[in-house]
Amino acid sequence: MNHDSNDTQKRKLTGEEIAKHNSRESCWVIIHGRAYDVTEFLPEHPGGPKIILKYAGKDATEEYEPIHPPDTLDKYLDKSKHLGEVDMKTVEKEEKEEDPDEEARQERIKKMPILEQCYNLMDFEAVAKNVMKKTAWAYYSSGADDEITMRENHNAFHKIWFRPRILQDVEHIDTSTTMLGTKVDMPYYVTATALGKLGNPEGEVILTRGAKKHNVIQMIPTLASCSFDEICDAREGDQCQWLQLYVNKNRDITQRIVQHAEKRGCKGLFITVDAPQLGRREKDMRSKFSDVGSNVQSTGGDDVDRSQGAARAISSFIDPSLSWKDIPWFLSITKMPIILKGVQCVEDVIRAIESGVHGVVLSNHGGRQLDFARSGIEVLAEVMPVLRERGWQDRIEIYIDGGVRRATDIIKALCLGAKGVGIGRPFLYAMSAYGLPGVDRAMQLLRDEMEMNMRLIGARSVEELNPTLVDVRGLSMHSAPVPRDTLGMNVYDPLIGPREKSKL
Amino acid sequence: MNHDSNDTQKRKLTGEEIAKHNSRESCWVIIHGRAYDVTEFLPEHPGGPKIILKYAGKDATEEYEPIHPPDTLDKYLDKSKHLGEVDMKTVEKEEKEEDPDEEARQERIKKMPILEQCYNLMDFEAVAKNVMKKTAWAYYSSGADDEITMRENHNAFHKIWFRPRILQDVEHIDTSTTMLGTKVDMPYYVTATALGKLGNPEGEVILTRGAKKHNVIQMIPTLASCSFDEICDAREGDQCQWLQLYVNKNRDITQRIVQHAEKRGCKGLFITVDAPQLGRREKDMRSKFSDVGSNVQSTGGDDVDRSQGAARAISSFIDPSLSWKDIPWFLSITKMPIILKGVQCVEDVIRAIESGVHGVVLSNHGGRQLDFARSGIEVLAEVMPVLRERGWQDRIEIYIDGGVRRATDIIKALCLGAKGVGIGRPFLYAMSAYGLPGVDRAMQLLRDEMEMNMRLIGARSVEELNPTLVDVRGLSMHSAPVPRDTLGMNVYDPLIGPREKSKL
Amino acid sequence: MNHDSNDTQKRKLTGEEIAKHNSRESCWVIIHGRAYDVTEFLPEHPGGPKIILKYAGKDATEEYEPIHPPDTLDKYLDKSKHLGEVDMKTVEKEEKEEDPDEEARQERIKKMPILEQCYNLMDFEAVAKNVMKKTAWAYYSSGADDEITMRENHNAFHKIWFRPRILQDVEHIDTSTTMLGTKVDMPYYVTATALGKLGNPEGEVILTRGAKKHNVIQMIPTLASCSFDEICDAREGDQCQWLQLYVNKNRDITQRIVQHAEKRGCKGLFITVDAPQLGRREKDMRSKFSDVGSNVQSTGGDDVDRSQGAARAISSFIDPSLSWKDIPWFLSITKMPIILKGVQCVEDVIRAIESGVHGVVLSNHGGRQLDFARSGIEVLAEVMPVLRERGWQDRIEIYIDGGVRRATDIIKALCLGAKGVGIGRPFLYAMSAYGLPGVDRAMQLLRDEMEMNMRLIGARSVEELNPTLVDVRGLSMHSAPVPRDTLGMNVYDPLIGPREKSKL
Amino acid sequence: MNHDSNDTQKRKLTGEEIAKHNSRESCWVIIHGRAYDVTEFLPEHPGGPKIILKYAGKDATEEYEPIHPPDTLDKYLDKSKHLGEVDMKTVEKEEKEEDPDEEARQERIKKMPILEQCYNLMDFEAVAKNVMKKTAWAYYSSGADDEITMRENHNAFHKIWFRPRILQDVEHIDTSTTMLGTKVDMPYYVTATALGKLGNPEGEVILTRGAKKHNVIQMIPTLASCSFDEICDAREGDQCQWLQLYVNKNRDITQRIVQHAEKRGCKGLFITVDAPQLGRREKDMRSKFSDVGSNVQSTGGDDVDRSQGAARAISSFIDPSLSWKDIPWFLSITKMPIILKGVQCVEDVIRAIESGVHGVVLSNHGGRQLDFARSGIEVLAEVMPVLRERGWQDRIEIYIDGGVRRATDIIKALCLGAKGVGIGRPFLYAMSAYGLPGVDRAMQLLRDEMEMNMRLIGARSVEELNPTLVDVRGLSMHSAPVPRDTLGMNVYDPLIGPREKSKL
Repeated sequence: MNHDSNDTQKRKLTGEEIAKHNSRESCWVIIHGRAYDVTEFLPEHPGGPKIILKYAGKDATEEYEPIHPPDTLDKYLDKSKHLGEVDMKTVEKEEKEEDPDEEARQERIKKMPILEQCYNLMDFEAVAKNVMKKTAWAYYSSGADDEITMRENHNAFHKIWFRPRILQDVEHIDTSTTMLGTKVDMPYYVTATALGKLGNPEGEVILTRGAKKHNVIQMIPTLASCSFDEICDAREGDQCQWLQLYVNKNRDITQRIVQHAEKRGCKGLFITVDAPQLGRREKDMRSKFSDVGSNVQSTGGDDVDRSQGAARAISSFIDPSLSWKDIPWFLSITKMPIILKGVQCVEDVIRAIESGVHGVVLSNHGGRQLDFARSGIEVLAEVMPVLRERGWQDRIEIYIDGGVRRATDIIKALCLGAKGVGIGRPFLYAMSAYGLPGVDRAMQLLRDEMEMNMRLIGARSVEELNPTLVDVRGLSMHSAPVPRDTLGMNVYDPLIGPREKSKL
Repeated sequence: MNHDSNDTQKRKLTGEEIAKHNSRESCWVIIHGRAYDVTEFLPEHPGGPKIILKYAGKDATEEYEPIHPPDTLDKYLDKSKHLGEVDMKTVEKEEKEEDPDEEARQERIKKMPILEQCYNLMDFEAVAKNVMKKTAWAYYSSGADDEITMRENHNAFHKIWFRPRILQDVEHIDTSTTMLGTKVDMPYYVTATALGKLGNPEGEVILTRGAKKHNVIQMIPTLASCSFDEICDAREGDQCQWLQLYVNKNRDITQRIVQHAEKRGCKGLFITVDAPQLGRREKDMRSKFSDVGSNVQSTGGDDVDRSQGAARAISSFIDPSLSWKDIPWFLSITKMPIILKGVQCVEDVIRAIESGVHGVVLSNHGGRQLDFARSGIEVLAEVMPVLRERGWQDRIEIYIDGGVRRATDIIKALCLGAKGVGIGRPFLYAMSAYGLPGVDRAMQLLRDEMEMNMRLIGARSVEELNPTLVDVRGLSMHSAPVPRDTLGMNVYDPLIGPREKSKL
Repeated sequence: MNHDSNDTQKRKLTGEEIAKHNSRESCWVIIHGRAYDVTEFLPEHPGGPKIILKYAGKDATEEYEPIHPPDTLDKYLDKSKHLGEVDMKTVEKEEKEEDPDEEARQERIKKMPILEQCYNLMDFEAVAKNVMKKTAWAYYSSGADDEITMRENHNAFHKIWFRPRILQDVEHIDTSTTMLGTKVDMPYYVTATALGKLGNPEGEVILTRGAKKHNVIQMIPTLASCSFDEICDAREGDQCQWLQLYVNKNRDITQRIVQHAEKRGCKGLFITVDAPQLGRREKDMRSKFSDVGSNVQSTGGDDVDRSQGAARAISSFIDPSLSWKDIPWFLSITKMPIILKGVQCVEDVIRAIESGVHGVVLSNHGGRQLDFARSGIEVLAEVMPVLRERGWQDRIEIYIDGGVRRATDIIKALCLGAKGVGIGRPFLYAMSAYGLPGVDRAMQLLRDEMEMNMRLIGARSVEELNPTLVDVRGLSMHSAPVPRDTLGMNVYDPLIGPREKSKL
Repeated sequence: MNHDSNDTQKRKLTGEEIAKHNSRESCWVIIHGRAYDVTEFLPEHPGGPKIILKYAGKDATEEYEPIHPPDTLDKYLDKSKHLGEVDMKTVEKEEKEEDPDEEARQERIKKMPILEQCYNLMDFEAVAKNVMKKTAWAYYSSGADDEITMRENHNAFHKIWFRPRILQDVEHIDTSTTMLGTKVDMPYYVTATALGKLGNPEGEVILTRGAKKHNVIQMIPTLASCSFDEICDAREGDQCQWLQLYVNKNRDITQRIVQHAEKRGCKGLFITVDAPQLGRREKDMRSKFSDVGSNVQSTGGDDVDRSQGAARAISSFIDPSLSWKDIPWFLSITKMPIILKGVQCVEDVIRAIESGVHGVVLSNHGGRQLDFARSGIEVLAEVMPVLRERGWQDRIEIYIDGGVRRATDIIKALCLGAKGVGIGRPFLYAMSAYGLPGVDRAMQLLRDEMEMNMRLIGARSVEELNPTLVDVRGLSMHSAPVPRDTLGMNVYDPLIGPREKSKL
């Protein structure tokens, strides 16, 4: 086959030629007008071979685009497999089957609420759920196992109630603070989330622009759809960015990534420590399955289908052997402050302090990794009293993420001792539904809520938020009520209000 | 334009003339048969310019009436903008579009349950929800953010259970008590609620008459639809009224209001301290949006729509810088007892006592301000043991409001140490649905419940209500159950009762 | 009118004559073929005048029968108002309006499940709900206010869990015990419930026969539909009955009732102490209202309709001034053991012991009196540790009632220290649906459950039931979860199981 | 009739002959081509006579097969009643009535999801519920009384949350452990469940094969559909099996069973101690009733129908007098380690240790025996701290079963101190829906979950699982929320998200 690839460097390939290589034995695909021989790569594809075989001999650009950063093929497919340009006029345009789901989605898009009808962060999610592609929605919205931790993340805030102070002269409210030395206008940052192009063709740079406008920090994800440099290039002025890092088994690659980020001006290194393996997310798996399922035969347990949704598709390159022993090395290769993202109990916060890192994010990865991991806010309430008892509360900066939807959630975290909170999915949903204006409005709404609620709680500035302003007695209780007695419940005849006249 | 206004003092304006001023550049409106030039006022309108522009060049009376006290235009619009009388015969009657929602509402009004079918305060709310205009309902019924505090207010009473005493000779039950020195027949008062004309064209004076009949106190709201003097004038005999006060930035205005109220015979000054800024109520905002939304274009985040429902429309004139330092001044300008309305934790009750005021209302403003503020009844259970320990329980009178719907709720509050409770929305709903007879019946039902339940708890008089009669162990727990496992729940096959014969 | 009544003693009255007296001014009714002049009685009727006026000039037998014991007219209407026999052939048969509700009920009766399909006590309730007249169902099934205590009664048992013992040789299970000295086969009794004929034309004597068959005690209600003597007469052999007593203001009447009961062989006197006034039950009031509502005009608050359902209709003759001072008198007029029924806190149990009575029933009247009264089982868990600490646990017999539906409920009560439990509504429902066979099966099912569950808990006899067999830590917690965040809940996309093939 | 049975040894019986014996007076049935006279056996049939009479004079094989092990007739019906072979050609094929339920089931089977769509153990249950016969589903899925314990079993795991450790080098995860000395690949075993052929015609041997493939232990049930030897014969290589034992009143039979099992290589004897009587399972009873109900007449309480579903049908032969005194005898008749299955409180665990047995299973029989028995996991949390305090934690092996559905459930049990967990129903459902491939995939999914979650919790091996990794503070709370206020709930107007444009 090598002679083919040499040959095609001189002339364009035709659709007809490529169409012949449509099997597991010889599998070519077209991406952005160029052909690639992926036959040997099939078994290595993190997303499984099936999804590639669906496009064998065909143009795979549309499917490929949103979940692979632009430099993927150069990085991971040997040059000899790059077959060269394709004369796209000769490629048969596949008549798309009519897809009633997609048609219904297009109808919903036509009737989308206008942006001003969104009054809170949940509203963006409601719109996004209606207008996003199902697989994209499934990837963003899914969580681990039964998604109990995912839901608990926001739920936990409901167990914290306020003890507001009155008559405090709250005419002027200052919501600004500093994070790792950077002054920001609001005590949250845009946390790292993968595959931004699933929601918007421009991807993560939209978040960069939104963050600039509201002077908050963006954390750049390792698994962005845009390349790292594209996201850096979108930065304006003295805008601050951080890097979220999945640590590669090959530490040379990791070192290169870290030092490149530092050179490009990143001001913080957030090492993800709660994902030695990317989580199983069944909603995502089920959605992916539907996509490739039609030509799948029922098979026995021996041949379990390993294609498991977008979540697993991007899961290579994460080193499960990462350990506390690696921390000194990280401290040695960069001057950026180092923060461990995904710490989940007080013992590990203490160990983090002892290891010399500069901060921790109390997080369970948005409920996407371990189900029944506790919420960040609950862990915070466990951590701070212990640190205060030791006098260690100022030795590192503590952040939380997960489930933040309201300014009251942010205030609760700050009262308990967090330096700030990370917000991820809500901005993805705002971006997916409305692009940059959506992100802008989401941030504006947060600011409006923040000022109002600080005023109502009687705190003029972030410094005035303190533990006496909250009642957290219910926070650590994980109660699941006794299952209901359905016979008794069914026979109960609920009270009703007055009936209409005609029904007397 | 000035010559116009002079001219129109001699002759009546015509509809045609006014209709020309239908834009942001020149905006006239007709109210109660007189024209006003509001062009310059547009940007200052607390309710936003959009709602005015909807009526530019037209008669706005119907929309204006229920949410502005009669003296509004005189007070806030310069005389030069009062253009004079309009010849209403020349004003084109706008053919109202058929509004299916309104038609359905008129149908529901025809089938309204008769008053005798209302057996408790919730029943009035059920009827009012059906027969009120949607925007009016939205204004009355909405709460802050997720409305969790609003619902918690009544919910909290469900966590308090009785420990009744038997064999107490309860033939004669005396429900009377005194509040700030006034003898009343029942231990509740009609608390201040804004915009009464949204529910009934006569407005707050209906509540005045109901309160008289049942010998309870009415608290007059700053933001009433009726003017303060109208409400005072409706008083009969030695009927007692209090004044609820939003403190204006201009203390001269505030002083004038307070001293006028004292002169008119008000017997208590309730200073609202939980609303340095009026709350965001999304139900209200969404309802208002629908109203003006049709001619709104989708816009980017830069141009966020600021028209935010009736709640924000009345929010000017409240001083967010009000602080403890202002209390001595208030004590100096009036002899009325001063009560802080909206205290929310024991520390502030202690401070209130130290500041020399005569009472506090433990309240979260009906759940309309800060979501996750605790209920008044819960704060009461926190406050009283601390006061008793200090021997301070009699130094001030303590009231609560929020969520009171049953006489048992009142009894619980009194057992815990409250002098009385405020009830607001339920009387608004009774008034909106049935006018004065509704308010009368609501009060009668409360009295019936009160006598019965005092008898059943074994207390002959308000004095006999005490903490040993209630079990409050569950009160302070804010539990939110673990999110449910939907896969497991869905697969459970609930037990069913015996089936009909034919289905065997 | 007197001459009429004299006259009619000689000849029969005609329907035509009676039909003339059809107004508030002159109101005659026919009952069991005899006419009565109730004009003067109208305002005194405990059930209100409206329900009588509905039958003015007509035959009221059908409505009258089930809710008045046979001797009512003789007792309460002056002889001069007894107008004598009516020639029933001359009375116009009222054509009953077709009542779609009643027709639907008759259809449901045709399809009634057969008795063997009832496997537990809830099943009888499910059937009864379907086949009973709506007003009768409303009277039996209703509770106070929001019916929260009524539901809590059974609910509370759900908070008690077992700690069973294994390997106990449970071949022979003995469920018998003694109550007030009488040997019974099961540790429950049939507690007093009013108006048995609403459910079955034979009334309470059916319960007498069922109790005999299963050798358990029946408590005879003051407000039975059958007369006291009818119920006594239905007794067989050495069957044991108790008397439930509402104390009349006229102590002579009370003394007569008590001493008559003792003479007729009653073995226990249960004085109701939780009902100085009969409860408001809104379900019952609403159901009654529908019945008489059609000719009612909407009226103002001044003229509140006082006809308030079957519950209030029977509420006269109860003395609200009954007090601890009356206990010595009761002890003096009878040798029957005296038990206070409706005690609700430990302080009153101690006082009861000190007053010399022989027992208490911890009860809230089936949730029909005071809403938010605690369940009997919860009060029991409060009482027993205090008595045991004083060594008083054997000084009286302690019973509970309310919410007992399963043998496990009975076992829980006995483990905590109750001598036995009262069961009321379940037998009424069994009787209403299936008559005596229903009651018999209900009791048989309870026995089956009892033997099985004592075996499974490892207790061979009632004596072996003790507090170490139950875990009651959750019992006293009255938790009401934080209201849910509807925006967040609505946007959550619940996990679903695998879909059918065709839906892929 | 004896001459008949002799006679038929020479010639085949005809369908016509058998059809004559179709009554209670003379009842013959055909099973597997042979006729049996069961007239005298009718009253002894554990499943009641009705179900046999339904097949009197007919071929009963299809009904008989799945719920009787092959050797049943030889064991329990006297040889004289074995009437000999039947000429099946002469037996009228009963035209099965069209059964719309069965037709709908066949339709659902056609559309069954393919195996790869099952991503967790609940998914198999969802499929099984759809494709199993209703009576089989009812037998497998039913629990005691209100099925509250059955649901609590899984529910209880939801009250335990993780405290994961980060940075632990979790590249290699070892899920293996030992149970009673046998090395296994996963810390669970396939626990004993009855009547496997209800789900799959091959029965329990499918579980044997699945267990072999994944190197886990199978516990052989006394009440298997396959005979004990069939299940032993299905064993391969050094595969390990245990025996679950219901103890027969006749200890000779028991001794024979135990010693035969030891001879056949069983490595553990699990004596069931939580079932002195088999539980009432109303779902099962109701399902059985529907089956035989059509020719049943409504009868009084005297003649209670005793046919009570598959659960009771197999309930003979269990000795309720089994007690602690029997333990030494068991220890004397076998060298297999002895484990008590169904221990439910710490007192009995201590007694078990003192009695010299080798292990306990903390279990409530899958919620099928005593409702309100606590979950195994909750009892484990009660037991281990007491044992550790005594230093007894290694004196026996402790297992739990009930409600295990996720690897996180297993991990929680191991963290708290269990040696392993039993899993029953999930494998039955996998087998019923998909046969051996289903069981295989279920086990593979558990392994995938196990590795991932151990990695995420930071534990490399089973030994590293320990109590500091879990938060169990909520576990022992049995909370049942206060019943809801339906009037208040109904009148609340829930918040909604933004509406579609056309609806403005």
